[in-house]
Amino acid sequence: MPIAVDVLGGDHAPGEILKGVAAALKEDFGPQELLLVGPEERIRSALAAEGVEAAPPILDTDQVIEPEEKPTRALKAKPRATISLCVGAVKKGMAAGLLSFGHTGAAVAAATFGLGMLPGMKRPGISVVLTGAAGKIVLLDAGANPQAKPEHLFQYGVAGAAFARDMHGIAEPRVGLLNIGGEAGKGSPVVRETHALLARSKLAFVGNVEGQELFAGKADVLVTDGFVGNMILKVVEGFVEYLVCQSQAQRSGELRDTFRRLFGAADFADIGGATLLGVDGVVLIGHGRSRANAVPPALRAVRREIQKGVNRHITEALAACHPSGAGDLPA
Amino acid sequence: MPIAVDVLGGDHAPGEILKGVAAALKEDFGPQELLLVGPEERIRSALAAEGVEAAPPILDTDQVIEPEEKPTRALKAKPRATISLCVGAVKKGMAAGLLSFGHTGAAVAAATFGLGMLPGMKRPGISVVLTGAAGKIVLLDAGANPQAKPEHLFQYGVAGAAFARDMHGIAEPRVGLLNIGGEAGKGSPVVRETHALLARSKLAFVGNVEGQELFAGKADVLVTDGFVGNMILKVVEGFVEYLVCQSQAQRSGELRDTFRRLFGAADFADIGGATLLGVDGVVLIGHGRSRANAVPPALRAVRREIQKGVNRHITEALAACHPSGAGDLPA
Repeated sequence: MPIAVDVLGGDHAPGEILKGVAAALKEDFGPQELLLVGPEERIRSALAAEGVEAAPPILDTDQVIEPEEKPTRALKAKPRATISLCVGAVKKGMAAGLLSFGHTGAAVAAATFGLGMLPGMKRPGISVVLTGAAGKIVLLDAGANPQAKPEHLFQYGVAGAAFARDMHGIAEPRVGLLNIGGEAGKGSPVVRETHALLARSKLAFVGNVEGQELFAGKADVLVTDGFVGNMILKVVEGFVEYLVCQSQAQRSGELRDTFRRLFGAADFADIGGATLLGVDGVVLIGHGRSRANAVPPALRAVRREIQKGVNRHITEALAACHPSGAGDLPA
Repeated sequence: MPIAVDVLGGDHAPGEILKGVAAALKEDFGPQELLLVGPEERIRSALAAEGVEAAPPILDTDQVIEPEEKPTRALKAKPRATISLCVGAVKKGMAAGLLSFGHTGAAVAAATFGLGMLPGMKRPGISVVLTGAAGKIVLLDAGANPQAKPEHLFQYGVAGAAFARDMHGIAEPRVGLLNIGGEAGKGSPVVRETHALLARSKLAFVGNVEGQELFAGKADVLVTDGFVGNMILKVVEGFVEYLVCQSQAQRSGELRDTFRRLFGAADFADIGGATLLGVDGVVLIGHGRSRANAVPPALRAVRREIQKGVNRHITEALAACHPSGAGDLPA
């Protein structure tokens, strides 16, 4: 079954998205593996110009949710928005997952309402993969749920562990709770209660992880609410931009290139986007600024999530938990 | 009136603290401008070894709150802890302000209970100064108040603006609210309500500031709760360490040095520590890792805060606000 691709979402859509699709088709994707959602004529001419001989199936539409639009209102006003048609294709079984570089809020809303949640899962969480000193780190939630309850955060630990097991091949992922102190009693009541739920579970819980330990490799999965998660990622992003500007001001091209290379680790685009975990479908949301080179790795990430059965494993892990959300996860 | 210095607080205390004190005494501080709180004999011999002829007055004690101790319990158990004697000296009018590189939680607790709040101020906030693309940025709260209410956050805007006016010479500091979206309706109810309070005030409120804009110079004062503020600062700190390690792994000494220089902007030690705004006294808390070179600039920051009358200006600004906390600040 194909992956639905939102051709109109993203700062450089549709041009860069279609260049990226063309690259994926030349590399390791067959045309039947993709379902392109966007303006048919434009898609055909762009792919032809890139030398693609057999174009994937196309769902024709020219509606798109713009960055400044309010998600729920815009989704109602534009029933044929690319993101809605992508979600609809997954819902109807015409696609096995979707990839969008468009409006994150609209993608979260469309997927949550259109696909519903996995059995047992309370709230979706945006899951971002960072590269730290000791390998890959799954950080969630990165913005879907800014006022998470302890049970939501606990479930992010369960879902993130299933994701890390499948996607990063870690048999028993270490789960950490982002907090402003190392001891169990630290943080807000929500964070303290989450600590208790995680500590009582069979997850490999390593306790609180402080901000300065984020990249240190203390945990394979880091749990936090959507406000903190979003803020952290955007601050690091802004800090990188600031440093790149500073190094440019110093006219050091070598330095700038080195920054860029190192900072790739903290950049959405290089890691194939963020997965919306918890909804009943595979949904990858790429960074809006992405260029063509971000498309093939993102498509591979969607394919891998589908092949590995991440969502089935999340559902199984949730079912194995106590109904209170506090219970046992198979080790 | 002198500045009380906690000689035993900090990872490299008392050696580096005393070296730093000696440097300040040789540079631009007279012995009567300082009150050293710590073990008298050790202080005298260390200063003599550094060539200091006239030592400042000393409050003799060898008790200190260790990093792993619980602040309130430790403060009770150690009535002669350096931080408590420093706070006591300010309270009794023996010192005009204090500087400590010790346990942050203990310093916040000792100052809050020992000095009380400025008239009208509800909660203290740790105020950190960052260097961004367009100059200095005051970020608060960095960890004193992890569950801030809208009125607390509003007051951080008022206090931070007074601080930026006095310390950075900005006539009308632009105040921003850290949030996960640009529009007024974004974020949690607490953040939304804070937005309304700030928008109705006479502060130069520039609205929400997103994480990626932190260093961009959109605001001179950035308001957030202690959980988010602490997390942001520590994540940036950890990210810097991670990058320095990466550049070391690449055996690029030039690169490492450049990192260090650029990253100074995000480092407590180079900016003289964090001010605990809101308590009835000038309290500067330096980074625990600080070395001797952090001491003189920190002492100068305390002196400047005292000379400028930051606390008087905060009190006046709060009094000019409506009792609900929503009201008018003199432009």
